[in-house]
Amino acid sequence: MDEFSTRDPAYVRRVTDSFHRQGLMRTFGAELGNIRPGFVEIRLPYDEKLTQQHGFIHAGAVSAIVDGAGGYAAFTLYQPGDGVLTVEFKINMMAPAEGDMLVARGQVIRPGKTLTVTTGEVVAVKDGQETTCAIMQQTIMRITGRTDVVD
Amino acid sequence: MDEFSTRDPAYVRRVTDSFHRQGLMRTFGAELGNIRPGFVEIRLPYDEKLTQQHGFIHAGAVSAIVDGAGGYAAFTLYQPGDGVLTVEFKINMMAPAEGDMLVARGQVIRPGKTLTVTTGEVVAVKDGQETTCAIMQQTIMRITGRTDVVD
Amino acid sequence: MDEFSTRDPAYVRRVTDSFHRQGLMRTFGAELGNIRPGFVEIRLPYDEKLTQQHGFIHAGAVSAIVDGAGGYAAFTLYQPGDGVLTVEFKINMMAPAEGDMLVARGQVIRPGKTLTVTTGEVVAVKDGQETTCAIMQQTIMRITGRTDVVD
Amino acid sequence: MDEFSTRDPAYVRRVTDSFHRQGLMRTFGAELGNIRPGFVEIRLPYDEKLTQQHGFIHAGAVSAIVDGAGGYAAFTLYQPGDGVLTVEFKINMMAPAEGDMLVARGQVIRPGKTLTVTTGEVVAVKDGQETTCAIMQQTIMRITGRTDVVD
Repeated sequence: MDEFSTRDPAYVRRVTDSFHRQGLMRTFGAELGNIRPGFVEIRLPYDEKLTQQHGFIHAGAVSAIVDGAGGYAAFTLYQPGDGVLTVEFKINMMAPAEGDMLVARGQVIRPGKTLTVTTGEVVAVKDGQETTCAIMQQTIMRITGRTDVVD
Repeated sequence: MDEFSTRDPAYVRRVTDSFHRQGLMRTFGAELGNIRPGFVEIRLPYDEKLTQQHGFIHAGAVSAIVDGAGGYAAFTLYQPGDGVLTVEFKINMMAPAEGDMLVARGQVIRPGKTLTVTTGEVVAVKDGQETTCAIMQQTIMRITGRTDVVD
Repeated sequence: MDEFSTRDPAYVRRVTDSFHRQGLMRTFGAELGNIRPGFVEIRLPYDEKLTQQHGFIHAGAVSAIVDGAGGYAAFTLYQPGDGVLTVEFKINMMAPAEGDMLVARGQVIRPGKTLTVTTGEVVAVKDGQETTCAIMQQTIMRITGRTDVVD
Repeated sequence: MDEFSTRDPAYVRRVTDSFHRQGLMRTFGAELGNIRPGFVEIRLPYDEKLTQQHGFIHAGAVSAIVDGAGGYAAFTLYQPGDGVLTVEFKINMMAPAEGDMLVARGQVIRPGKTLTVTTGEVVAVKDGQETTCAIMQQTIMRITGRTDVVD
């Protein structure tokens, strides 16, 4: 993966502050993991409140954390005051999301003035072993004015 | 949209039973809406526990309910005993998910023996007005044996 | 589908001029069909030079015409001088692309200042009967400066 | 990337034979590059007959070669007699497809009995330098019976 540099030395705090304002991540019990310029991890411990009909973690929760990881990966490269919005993403589910914890990893592939392209993966961790359960490809938009809308 | 017929007269009960086993939908406070062969609605009242950093409903929650609506739309056309899995989906976010309630609608476009293609939309309802906030395109797999894996 | 109005009365000519500068569409033998604000058709007569290994029209040719139809659908709503670029698209193949002709139809779902969301379908026409062989969901970017790059 | 092994020692010949039956690849002037188990390259020299309205290679041609590269990457892992079909793919365009040649690379991420997930990239080669101009995520289906249909 490419290495990126960010012009904002406070990028970790920006990501952390935004993440903690997300009610959904708190409801999930999700936590931030590693954060580097262009890369963010979100960790999600297994919880029955997140399941689908067979007791695995719901594809919707898998999608939510990897969408967030990709968006925050783009956000690390923004300047203070910029906002971040998901334009779209596509996700393939590859294995049941079972285990002790899921880890979603978002990685910037191509940063842009307006649009940033990212990829992501979600691994299920069980007894210390990682299994990839989903991969994602995503488009993120930088918001510089007041409006919080894809336009 | 096409009209479909289902060979299983108990399809509404099959959808309802499966939906109620999903811990995530209970955590969200989501409810089933209209159900017809090849079509399912999931309704999600606004709740602060579902938000992103600006107070709108999180894209991850939007994705979760429309993924579920598409999957259950396919499931209406299955036979008793068949299982349903999301192979992949792609979603475009088009407007902030704000309002009193979101309604996700999943519609089968092409049913198949193994794979079913669906589309979906999520509308935000505010003061009785609907605004489309996301559209989705999805591939669903029928599981006939015991395994709960895309393979 | 929604109805759109365009501020440029010469939108049909703008689409036609741009289309005729595309070497690939000429190589394919593709032609424009109906054009309305927010909607464009591209027709592709069957030709052996467009096939995959089983003699059907190649998924790559199917993708090319529906990508073009969606992009030009957005372009109908632009102002003179604006350029159009595909940010991304996702396509599901649903039936073999066989028959006398393919027709790709692109439709704007949500027009925007920077980004426009479209959907598309490709139908195969055989003995006057249409079969849907693909559906698409796409993000298009308006280019207002000189640069011809997604950024 | 993962390393894969194939049970069919004649996999290179299978890929080559199928590729040479594709009228579209011949029309494009495309050629096979490196082939390994789970990995296939398709090379496309620049040609005016492949262009869009600004003289770059058309997104449709970019899509066609990376769709093919991903499909043949899956095909390397199949057994003699199996057929390969694209279920769906999603592609992000990241830079203009300009230069002397495009190289599309398809890589299997998760092989499966029925469905295989791949990723792909297209690089533009100019004066020996590579620029990534597109990335793709794809679902491929193995066809074991006579029917040539996603079902």
